[in-house]
Amino acid sequence: MIHAGGAAAKLQAAGGVRSITFDATAPLQLSSGETLSPLTLAFETYGALNTERTNAVLVCHALMGDQFVASPNPVTGRPAWWPRIVGPGRPIDTNRFFVICANTLGGSMGSTGPGAMAPDAQPYGLRLPPITLADTVRAQSMLVEALGIESLFLVIGPGMGGMQALNWASAYPKRVFACATIASAAKQSAQNIAFAELGRQAIMADPDWRNGAYLTHGVRPAKGAAVARTAAHIAGLAATEVRSRFDSARTKERFAFTLEADAAQRAPTSAGYVERFDANSYLYLSRAMDGFDLASDYGGRLSNAFQDASTRHGVFAFSSDWRFPVDESRDIARALIASGAEASFVEIKSERGHDAYLADEPAFEAALTGFVDAAAAARGLALHGGV
Amino acid sequence: MIHAGGAAAKLQAAGGVRSITFDATAPLQLSSGETLSPLTLAFETYGALNTERTNAVLVCHALMGDQFVASPNPVTGRPAWWPRIVGPGRPIDTNRFFVICANTLGGSMGSTGPGAMAPDAQPYGLRLPPITLADTVRAQSMLVEALGIESLFLVIGPGMGGMQALNWASAYPKRVFACATIASAAKQSAQNIAFAELGRQAIMADPDWRNGAYLTHGVRPAKGAAVARTAAHIAGLAATEVRSRFDSARTKERFAFTLEADAAQRAPTSAGYVERFDANSYLYLSRAMDGFDLASDYGGRLSNAFQDASTRHGVFAFSSDWRFPVDESRDIARALIASGAEASFVEIKSERGHDAYLADEPAFEAALTGFVDAAAAARGLALHGGV
Repeated sequence: MIHAGGAAAKLQAAGGVRSITFDATAPLQLSSGETLSPLTLAFETYGALNTERTNAVLVCHALMGDQFVASPNPVTGRPAWWPRIVGPGRPIDTNRFFVICANTLGGSMGSTGPGAMAPDAQPYGLRLPPITLADTVRAQSMLVEALGIESLFLVIGPGMGGMQALNWASAYPKRVFACATIASAAKQSAQNIAFAELGRQAIMADPDWRNGAYLTHGVRPAKGAAVARTAAHIAGLAATEVRSRFDSARTKERFAFTLEADAAQRAPTSAGYVERFDANSYLYLSRAMDGFDLASDYGGRLSNAFQDASTRHGVFAFSSDWRFPVDESRDIARALIASGAEASFVEIKSERGHDAYLADEPAFEAALTGFVDAAAAARGLALHGGV
Repeated sequence: MIHAGGAAAKLQAAGGVRSITFDATAPLQLSSGETLSPLTLAFETYGALNTERTNAVLVCHALMGDQFVASPNPVTGRPAWWPRIVGPGRPIDTNRFFVICANTLGGSMGSTGPGAMAPDAQPYGLRLPPITLADTVRAQSMLVEALGIESLFLVIGPGMGGMQALNWASAYPKRVFACATIASAAKQSAQNIAFAELGRQAIMADPDWRNGAYLTHGVRPAKGAAVARTAAHIAGLAATEVRSRFDSARTKERFAFTLEADAAQRAPTSAGYVERFDANSYLYLSRAMDGFDLASDYGGRLSNAFQDASTRHGVFAFSSDWRFPVDESRDIARALIASGAEASFVEIKSERGHDAYLADEPAFEAALTGFVDAAAAARGLALHGGV
């Protein structure tokens, strides 16, 4: 039992998943006006917190990500999702920083979400109240506080995680020393809303969705979830990759109509392909992303979201990302500069589309390292290599 | 029985759907190298062909459209889909022009497609060979020839129909006096391919798809087809409309997760909502669109697709269309001008997104009327109002 801000929180570990649960004395206040309690957040940490507690980094994962940013996921067996960026000697050096990554509120890897047990010992399903990205950030702030960290050195994330990082910098400016937004936006685009709605419709069209109560019925909308996952997958590719993938219509005499879910189920390496992300979590989190519009909370002016802040910002975008186009990142940087914040904007030339943030992109690693090292120096943290 | 170019073709009418069937003496040559025979094209005509046979207009419909451009569809009961543009006194004036609109090859409103009967009296299903948009245009040219028309005054179409119009102008430059491309592109974008693939995946994930043989089993993948239709619907909206539609995530305490197919089935006015477009047709035609890249057939230079042509081109785009962005239309106009063609490019300021071509947009009607009237004058056709 640990105490943080008067709240009682309990640490647990089961099946390789560690989590913290806040009891009824610390309910999560939701944007909708409702409260959520108890609140559980599954999280991983890497490296050690320094005695000054000034070297903590919070990594916010993308829509279909999880907390296993730098270590294998013991549930799915999948490797760490961002080993190029987080780890010993990497841009976010775990020899130097204390890295926290929590499964987001609404997620499906141990945190409170539609697939988790409600107080009545039945899965929440669609009984979980609607959540916003501000809610997910508020939940993260409870975890950070419970870990005894008053101010984060860095909040960083790609896609949905970048939206959360921006929300952190806006909501808790004194608690974020540096903020890195990767391949993201301050507002969900119509295109992304449309993709998300298609994913949701495909899930709900699956007879095994059972109006969201599939866990109670012991089934899963595997095919619908696979379609949603395909949505995310295709949207992560560069335009040229999308074209070459579907160019078979031009180059082959016969093209096959193949369901991705079938292909995934046939492939022995992709066991758990559709199991590893809960379909209802997709519904909740994609809706939370669709509702994200940081400017609208501040009178329609994005720069107002960052007033009186000393946070240093790095905004990183990839040239071939048509899901979160470079222009949307440039808009963030412009608003930050208009607000008086210290902000750098980096466009990385890449042919890998949105998913470039996961790929071997030395220019991205170099730019991110530069940003992190400069921020660490400004915070008086030891240089790369030293502890 | 009519004879055209030596081919025997038979006119038929059933259930309000008129069609022409070309027998084995006139097989359709497909891009894949295969041939298709017999070939049936369902079509409607409006107005009268003049004695010089110089006033024929071919309208090419969009992916989910049909031949009932200016009259109610007797099968679905839906009204004409383009009454603002085609009809007496409209920009394409049926008092003046002889308008032809055929259900596309691969469609589901009477033309040869996956839902039509194969020679073995069973539905084609996935046994239909793959088709390209060039194939659909070749089929249309057989119809036009059978109707005794050597040269079309105008070929016009939105979206997929615009791609077909461009293909007409490129493949048969001497047979197209004027070409109007509406909210379209010379190449399917990665974004559109991604949307289409999601629609296809949703259809194939529906248990009632039965590997494409649903008609033989007496069922239909209604939910999957509804998801595909939702894809088209959302993508047709302006970005602001998409946002306002899904802003409930921000403004309501509880948002509902609602399947479009359920909503459609509940609504008494939308009977046939998912029936009116065959799921397999979506698979074939969306793949045909995905493979459309006019420049690639001409050494990668779009302007080469329009060499030695006297066709007059009008390229029309809508400012809020993010599905077929204005820039893609501008690229067409640039290529046309580079090829030496007479081309005008019109960007219509609209807040209605891609579907603006269907809406009450006086600026579009005025611009199109101007283009049509100028082309008619150049062709020596009687003025608006005269016959």
